[in-house]
Parts: sequence; structure tokens; C-alpha cells
Amino acid sequence: MRLSQLAASASVSIPTVKYYLREGLLPPGVRKSATDAEYSEEHVRRLRLIRALREVVGMPVEKIAQVLAAIDDTEADSYARLGRAIGALSDAPTADDYPRARAALEALNMVYDPAFPAVAQLDAALQAAESVGVAVTPTRLKLYARHVRAMAAFDIQHLPAGSLDDVEYAVLGTALHEPVLAALRRLEHQDLLAESRGG
Amino acid sequence: MRLSQLAASASVSIPTVKYYLREGLLPPGVRKSATDAEYSEEHVRRLRLIRALREVVGMPVEKIAQVLAAIDDTEADSYARLGRAIGALSDAPTADDYPRARAALEALNMVYDPAFPAVAQLDAALQAAESVGVAVTPTRLKLYARHVRAMAAFDIQHLPAGSLDDVEYAVLGTALHEPVLAALRRLEHQDLLAESRGG
Repeated sequence: MRLSQLAASASVSIPTVKYYLREGLLPPGVRKSATDAEYSEEHVRRLRLIRALREVVGMPVEKIAQVLAAIDDTEADSYARLGRAIGALSDAPTADDYPRARAALEALNMVYDPAFPAVAQLDAALQAAESVGVAVTPTRLKLYARHVRAMAAFDIQHLPAGSLDDVEYAVLGTALHEPVLAALRRLEHQDLLAESRGG
Repeated sequence: MRLSQLAASASVSIPTVKYYLREGLLPPGVRKSATDAEYSEEHVRRLRLIRALREVVGMPVEKIAQVLAAIDDTEADSYARLGRAIGALSDAPTADDYPRARAALEALNMVYDPAFPAVAQLDAALQAAESVGVAVTPTRLKLYARHVRAMAAFDIQHLPAGSLDDVEYAVLGTALHEPVLAALRRLEHQDLLAESRGG
């Protein structure tokens, strides 16, 4: 398909598609002439992913480039690609060791691997909660982890088949289901409080 | 205590405390002289809350003002104050009706009240997921809701006693435990994927 069709099929403007091509977020099409190139279904899928991360998640273009680079890294297996792509979704300060995350993961009998970016994220989140007086107690941590694991197991069982799609889907599911869970949690709080008032 | 002690006890600079006083985020102290005022433990607690929302959650000052106004609204009961304060934590476009959230809450046998801001949030999150091809299916929704409810029940059981503190604590717990849950979910995904690879 032509650039105009590519743009239309992902609901993105033509100048925006050209911008993504210039920035290297989208791979070039196959040249047909000096002014014309051919784009594929893979371009459409990639363009939709970029639009989702930019417009829905609100991610800056430089961060999107990091996520895409991790997805496209053919040297790494899908497990490593997933870790890096998900890691690029958030900023957490990196360090050699993450004592709060280490203690938490040990208490949960989970592997502590400081190279995985979600470890830095967990450490930062635990530290932030502690710093304002709402530290996550071991009891709370264990209860949260049990329920989160049950939800995560469902997610893994329901990953679509396929290779590249797999990592793309996991990135989107991570980024887009987190706000659903957060909103649900707030509504459950309200519901339970209403019940406890006898309402 | 004096302004300098107030600042030190919440680890905030003196110019920042003066800025919060000017913006009305902090109530004025009791005047002792033309240049001196007396501040209380309530000022310290409020200043810590402002610092948490600003530095840890990264909330702009105008949003913090909305959260504090909801907390301080003496006309409303603590249930309504909590709803408004939590609502002010996020931006979601408001509408008269939220069809996706309505359908979801009906499926979960939960009350649908469009006036509660987390309903707008849930609707926006469901729409965003749908728009990029990772729609939340009814099966997924029910499973998520069951586990989120169990975590929310723990939260409600463990609210500290007290009145104003109650709402302040719930605001902080909502804002600061969400990133912990998100990081845990990413780590559980990784853990389960590692297991399924036989690692």
C-alpha cells in the first residue's frame, strides 16, 4: 500500500507518518520510484503500536524508540526482549542494588535480578510509599502478590500465539491494563466503603 | 513552632513553604507578631502530604489544591470527601454517561454512579485498551475484579482510625500503592514466563 493508505489504516495523519519514518520509528517502505514506496501490513501494525503508546499511554517519542528497539532486537530471545520493552515503559533510577525490592522479592520467594527494570521500579515504589508514611508491610505485600500473581497467570495464559506480536501484545497489555486495574481498585474501595456505611 | 521548624520537620525548603502559604495549600499560622507566626502539628502533616503528592506522585500544584479542597470540605461526609479527593488524583474526560464502565460494573454487580470520578477513569481505560486491540474481555474483567476486590478489602480493613487522617491516608495509599502493584504485576509476568520456559 502507499503512504496515504498506511496513514489512513492506522488513523494517523500523513505528516505524522513521515515524521515517524524520519525518526526511524517506522522502517522505510520498499522503494517503487523516486517519490513512491510500498508499505506492508507490518507497517500498519507498527504504526498502530506507535499511536497507542503516544496518544493513549502518552509516551514521548524518544521512549517509544526505546520500546521499539527492544522489540526489534533480533539478538535477544523473546523473554529478554519483553523485559527490556516493558522496562522502557517506565523511568526508575538505576542502581547496583535495590535493597527494598530485594527484601520484598526474597519474602515472596521470587527471583531477584537487579538487571530487570521492574525491580528498579518496585524499589522506587516501595521507597516512595515508605517516605510518606504508607509503607507496604510484609503482610500487605504477600496478600497483594498472591492476587497479582493470579491475574498475571491469567495474562500469560491468554497471550496470543506468534513471535513479534507476542512482545508487542505484552507491551500493550502491560501499559493499557494497568489503568483498568487502578480504576477498578478505586471503585472497589468505594463499593466496600459504601457497604461498611450500611449504604 | 516557627516557619523554619515547620519546613525542617517536613524536609521542605523555607521558600517552598512560603510559596504553599501564598497559594493557599497550607493554612496560615497563628500570628504572633508582624513577622512571626506559630505553626502546629497539623501544618506538618499537611506539608508532608503536599510534598508526597508533588515530589513522589509528581502532581502539579493546581491538582494538589483540588485534592486538599476535597479533603477539607467540611460540608461533605468522609465518604464523599474520599471520592472527590481520589477523583482529583487523575484526569479523565467527564461525560453524562460512561457506557463501557456501565456495562463493566453491571457485569460485576457493582453500583454504577457516573458522578464518581473513578467511573470516568475506568471508562477511559477500557476505551483506550479497546482502541489498540487489547480490549478487556468479560472473563478477564471478572477475574481482575475478584482479585482487586480482595486487595481492596484488605486496604479498607487496614485504614487507620481517625477522621481527616483517614481521607489523607486513603489518598496516599491510592496514589502510592498503585505503582507497587504495577511493578509487582510486571515481575510476576516475568517470573511466570521464566517458569514456562523451564528456566
